[in-house]
Formats: sequence, C-alpha cells, structure tokens
Amino acid sequence: MALGRSKEKARQHAWYKHVDFHEIDLLGNSSGFMPLPGSRLMHLAWSDLTDFRSLSHLETSLPSNYRFIKHMVEHGVQTVLVAGTCLEYGHLCGPIRPETDPQPVLPYAAAKNMLHQQLQHLQHQQNFLLKWVRLFYMYGSGQNPRSVLAQLDAAIDRGDSTFRMSGGEQLRDYLPVEDVAAGLVKQLESPGQGPSHVCSSTPISIRRLVEERIRQHGVKMELELGYYPYPDYEPMAFWGANNKE
Amino acid sequence: MALGRSKEKARQHAWYKHVDFHEIDLLGNSSGFMPLPGSRLMHLAWSDLTDFRSLSHLETSLPSNYRFIKHMVEHGVQTVLVAGTCLEYGHLCGPIRPETDPQPVLPYAAAKNMLHQQLQHLQHQQNFLLKWVRLFYMYGSGQNPRSVLAQLDAAIDRGDSTFRMSGGEQLRDYLPVEDVAAGLVKQLESPGQGPSHVCSSTPISIRRLVEERIRQHGVKMELELGYYPYPDYEPMAFWGANNKE
Repeated sequence: MALGRSKEKARQHAWYKHVDFHEIDLLGNSSGFMPLPGSRLMHLAWSDLTDFRSLSHLETSLPSNYRFIKHMVEHGVQTVLVAGTCLEYGHLCGPIRPETDPQPVLPYAAAKNMLHQQLQHLQHQQNFLLKWVRLFYMYGSGQNPRSVLAQLDAAIDRGDSTFRMSGGEQLRDYLPVEDVAAGLVKQLESPGQGPSHVCSSTPISIRRLVEERIRQHGVKMELELGYYPYPDYEPMAFWGANNKE
Repeated sequence: MALGRSKEKARQHAWYKHVDFHEIDLLGNSSGFMPLPGSRLMHLAWSDLTDFRSLSHLETSLPSNYRFIKHMVEHGVQTVLVAGTCLEYGHLCGPIRPETDPQPVLPYAAAKNMLHQQLQHLQHQQNFLLKWVRLFYMYGSGQNPRSVLAQLDAAIDRGDSTFRMSGGEQLRDYLPVEDVAAGLVKQLESPGQGPSHVCSSTPISIRRLVEERIRQHGVKMELELGYYPYPDYEPMAFWGANNKE
C-alpha cells in the first residue's frame, strides 16, 4: 500500500499499477485513512524541501506529520520507520555515529529532530516500534533538480564545455537512490529500534563525485572550481558511520 | 498590562486594580489581542503543570504558546522573556550553567526546550530580543499545593505530629517567590540575550529546607524520612550556576 499527495503524479510511475495507492494530504485532514492492523509504516513524506530555512518546517510540517503518525499508531500500525536527515547533526564534522546527539541548525533539520523526540515521548503512551533512519546524500532517478549532480547531468545533456561549482573539496556521504531504498527496506525488516543511518560510510569529495560522473558519460568538461561559495549550513566534511562498525 | 486566562481569578488579587487586565486563553484564539508597539512581553503561562508527563505539553501547549508569541512579535513586541525550567536539564547533576545543552526527559521539559529552539529560529525572520530564563524551585504565596513545602504548611496548620516525605537528601536550588519575581524583572530590564537562570546558586537538601520551615513556625514535628521514593525524573543533586560566577 502506498500513500501520496497526488494520484495524478503517482500514476506516471511504473510501480503505480503494482500498489494499492491512496491519495492523502498530511497538511490537510488525514484522519480518514485507516491502516491495516499490525501493519508497518515507512514515512518518507516532508514538504518545502526547496527551502531548508522556511519556518513552515517547524510551524506546519512538524505538527501535521506528528498528528498523522500518531493517528496511524492509534489505529494499529506497530512499526514506524521515519526518514531523518544527516542535517540533524548541524556543524559536526568527521564520521558520525547514529547515537550522536543531533545539533540541528536549519529549521528543516530542527523540525525533523523535534519530530523524532515527540515520537519517542509518544512511545510512552502508545506501543509501537520506532526506527529513525537518518539519510545522507543520494543521487539517481527523481533527484532534486537543484542538486549538484542533477545540474551536472543537465549541463552534460546541453553539451556544455564548462561546469560551474563550489570548491568541491567538501567531503560527503553519497549513495545511489536504489541503495538508499534497499537500505530503508532492510532497516524496516530488522528487529532493532533507535536511530540508525542509511549511508555509504565512505566520504567522497564533491569534486571527485563530479569527475567520476563526467568520466562515466565519456564527455569532456572543464570544472570551474570555486565559482560558488560553500553552503554556510553544512560542515566541510561529514559522513555516516554505523553502530556496529 | 497583564494577560491571563481568568478575569474572575485575577480579580481576587490585590494587584488587580493596579493593572490593565486582559482575559486571553492561549489555547483558543489569542490573535485578537494587540500589544503596544515596542512593548516587552514576560511570558509565564503554561498549562497542565500537575502532569509533567502529559503529551499535551508537546501536542497543545508548544504550538499554542509559539503561535501567541509569534503573534506578539509580529505586532510590535520587541523583547520577549519566557520562563524556562530547570527540568530542561534532565538527569544532569551538580552546578549547571545556563549555556549547558538541555537534555530534557519529561514531555513538559521537552516542550519548553522545543519552544526555546523554535523562538530562536523565529528570530531569523522577526527582529526581537529573546531572554530564556530557566527557573529552579520556589516557594511562597500561590505555590503548587502538591509541592513539599505546601504539604508541610498544611500539616503544620493541621497540627500534625509527623510529616511523611522522601529521604530528603536530594539537593535543590530554592528561592522565595518574591526573589524569583525580582529576578525576572531584573532579567527583563538587562540588555543581554540568551539563556539565563533565576536561582539561588546554593544547593540545599529538602530535609534541611523542611527542618528550617518547621523551626520558623516554632512547632515540633517528626520527619518520616524515606516514606516516599525519590522522583525518577529528577537527578539527586542539581542547582543553578550563573554565567558570570
């Protein structure tokens, strides 16, 4: 069963005919939907991801997502997996383990972290398993058109000879979106609780990421390194580590 | 100007005739009230203080208090002082400085801490001064009838010969309510921002606090120490420290 804001949009995907799709807007009244008893919820919804600084994350998304998840566990959902974000760690550098205390800077990251805390308090009154899975960076089908690799792909498609980017020295944790999806399913099916990561655990510089992509496409393109400044809300180098490593 | 939930209740106080009182329920629609431009808000309101574990702190009090304060700063309030709580520190022991990262355990304390964070995010969009003043323990007129000193006073009034209490070894930071009020006014009038404390900075055991109170009343009363267990949500020993000490 899949839930989403737009049946229209869902219909364009190949998977649509294989699932029982329900159109739901979390920001509206979602209390009409009744889950199957004992079912598991994988919660990947969030709004306004084009503006991490919007107060709507705290004022609107936080209470509406909490309300929806509470409604689901009150009506029989027994396992809840929610996608957290590596941005919850704020300016922390280096390898980060999932038990690390978040220090979010952006309203988006703060709202995600508050949702996590609120759901932990809810667990004292409702019996359900909570898996908070922080995602790092990803690329592939459906990626944010403002992301560096989406912009690079567009430049390659246009046949550009140069590509403007940041200094490119920043170290990040990237996974193909298919690996992220497989990681989420694995976490949903594992018996454990608590915060965890879906990550590569291997830092890569944005410069090398871009160079490898260009090489894969077999094109020639010059990098205009340092054209854009580094974003001020991200540390220069951070990547995921897992509990058991 | 004073705002409160009940005009009826406010009328019973001597100060009522000296202030311009407005009846407002923050849990309802408080957007009709318009503050004086450039005025200062001392926010001491909160609900359900008889149950620190209620989810209403997170689900109802947090969004409604945030909404009210946002409305006030959008309509001209330039300085906002909000009463935080020493419970925001969770299980931390010893002297605690106000810049310490909160680690709240109770839904009440978590909601206060989230309100603090949400107001800091709001400051990026609205220009106002925020003073987050964490209060410790207090006693005096109007105190919570479930507090140890209120119960002791009731026992003294009844002429009881024994008083049942916890082990009494726990160390706390207590101030008379008049000193708390003076401390709040002082903080409101100071130029600074950021988290601060109104506290005595001197730890006292609950046992000694009770013994001194009995002595002041000039009565004889035996303490049944250890009758009640220590509360599980408070550390054995914590008290306030101030930045400048």
